[in-house]
Amino acid sequence: MTASAVPLLTDVRRRRADRARQVADVLRRQVVGGEFGDRPLPLDSVLARRFGTSRNAMRAALELLREEGLVERCPGVGTTVARAKYPHGLDRLLGLAETLREHGEVTNEVRTMGLTVPPPAVGERLGLPGGEPVVYVERLRRLNGLPLSLDLTYLARDVGEPLFEADLEHNDIFVLIERLSGQPLGRADLTVEAVNADAHTAAVLQTPPGTALLMVERLAHLSDGRPVDLEYIRFRGDRLTMRGHLLRTTE
Amino acid sequence: MTASAVPLLTDVRRRRADRARQVADVLRRQVVGGEFGDRPLPLDSVLARRFGTSRNAMRAALELLREEGLVERCPGVGTTVARAKYPHGLDRLLGLAETLREHGEVTNEVRTMGLTVPPPAVGERLGLPGGEPVVYVERLRRLNGLPLSLDLTYLARDVGEPLFEADLEHNDIFVLIERLSGQPLGRADLTVEAVNADAHTAAVLQTPPGTALLMVERLAHLSDGRPVDLEYIRFRGDRLTMRGHLLRTTE
Repeated sequence: MTASAVPLLTDVRRRRADRARQVADVLRRQVVGGEFGDRPLPLDSVLARRFGTSRNAMRAALELLREEGLVERCPGVGTTVARAKYPHGLDRLLGLAETLREHGEVTNEVRTMGLTVPPPAVGERLGLPGGEPVVYVERLRRLNGLPLSLDLTYLARDVGEPLFEADLEHNDIFVLIERLSGQPLGRADLTVEAVNADAHTAAVLQTPPGTALLMVERLAHLSDGRPVDLEYIRFRGDRLTMRGHLLRTTE
Repeated sequence: MTASAVPLLTDVRRRRADRARQVADVLRRQVVGGEFGDRPLPLDSVLARRFGTSRNAMRAALELLREEGLVERCPGVGTTVARAKYPHGLDRLLGLAETLREHGEVTNEVRTMGLTVPPPAVGERLGLPGGEPVVYVERLRRLNGLPLSLDLTYLARDVGEPLFEADLEHNDIFVLIERLSGQPLGRADLTVEAVNADAHTAAVLQTPPGTALLMVERLAHLSDGRPVDLEYIRFRGDRLTMRGHLLRTTE
């Protein structure tokens, strides 16, 4: 192929919104990755030069990140990072407090806890016969006092009952299960979705209705393979990312 | 512990919105998992009985799933599945057409393609010296004709240039890279977030503004470890889930 067959992107007329999105994506990763720390972002003109784009497209890109709640824009002050976003690992099964240890203190407000006969679909996931009661726990989880996630948890009865007397406020359920059952956890099956927060969930998570949430369904097994912990987790999308690695071939 | 120390959940007065969310989460997985196929869901009263909840809470749960665009509610017809949601693997690095082969045909509309000097943050991720041009490709990806994702891709020049003459419309970039470079891909680093669609992105993806999107940043390496493909992918949250497994201990 000759070089002349390859069009230069600058030769192509593109809509400003398309250019703004392209810039915003790269800048988002820099902000989320903590590249600017607590400092303000560079001036729009400096950023525009760095990204090789127009100031108008740069402003539009920053406006996209402002709408997402990632940055704040203030005349005279410039652009500042509004809120840190924390990474949750996709490579290893970890509780929230374990994974965010370096970022601050996780506290859990137990909203509901009790024995219940779950719907058949839950019993089946936990490998239980119909009508077998399970322990249901609902927690609002905060990092440094700010809501991070709302977790709905179904636990096999023998694993869940000892938690009634445990300090759920300051401990991950994973850690408590391992401590109280004397058996380590093994593998978990995971589904990740993006959903809009309904009004009530938004109020609980102290975020505007419609906010994008990372919704995780996770079924954790003990190391002997028994499924014991089924969770439905809503993370505030503006406060958490999930990070991991994939391999092309599975060995 | 004595049984009397464990409260029965039915004894606890809970808000209907809390009960509705709890029911909706379990039902969502059943719908997304294809449990009802093309058939309508059971009557509200049947579902309420199955979930051991009130009809009011059941109706509120179905309303949550309707707001998410997962089901439709129609007087006289009942509740039907509005839209299938497709699983994308978190266990193995696969292109979209590879992973969704059984669900239909993936087609790619190339919106932009050309050589460009990327912002420094992109060059660094690809391990390139400053000012080195890369190939930029922007694709709107459809499954069976319906928009599924908008992908912004930066490719190392030697890997990307041969794509100008390839059939990008009907092939995953992953597959083309391997075919044209003669080298398999190896590992990819992945970040997953939930963001609200801005107005312009929403229009491109044919979804309402504000729709929750799964936003993925993925850096794929050739099997020799060289990073060659940096992608920013926006999946429509109502059309895709990501599925995988985690282990408690890393071997």
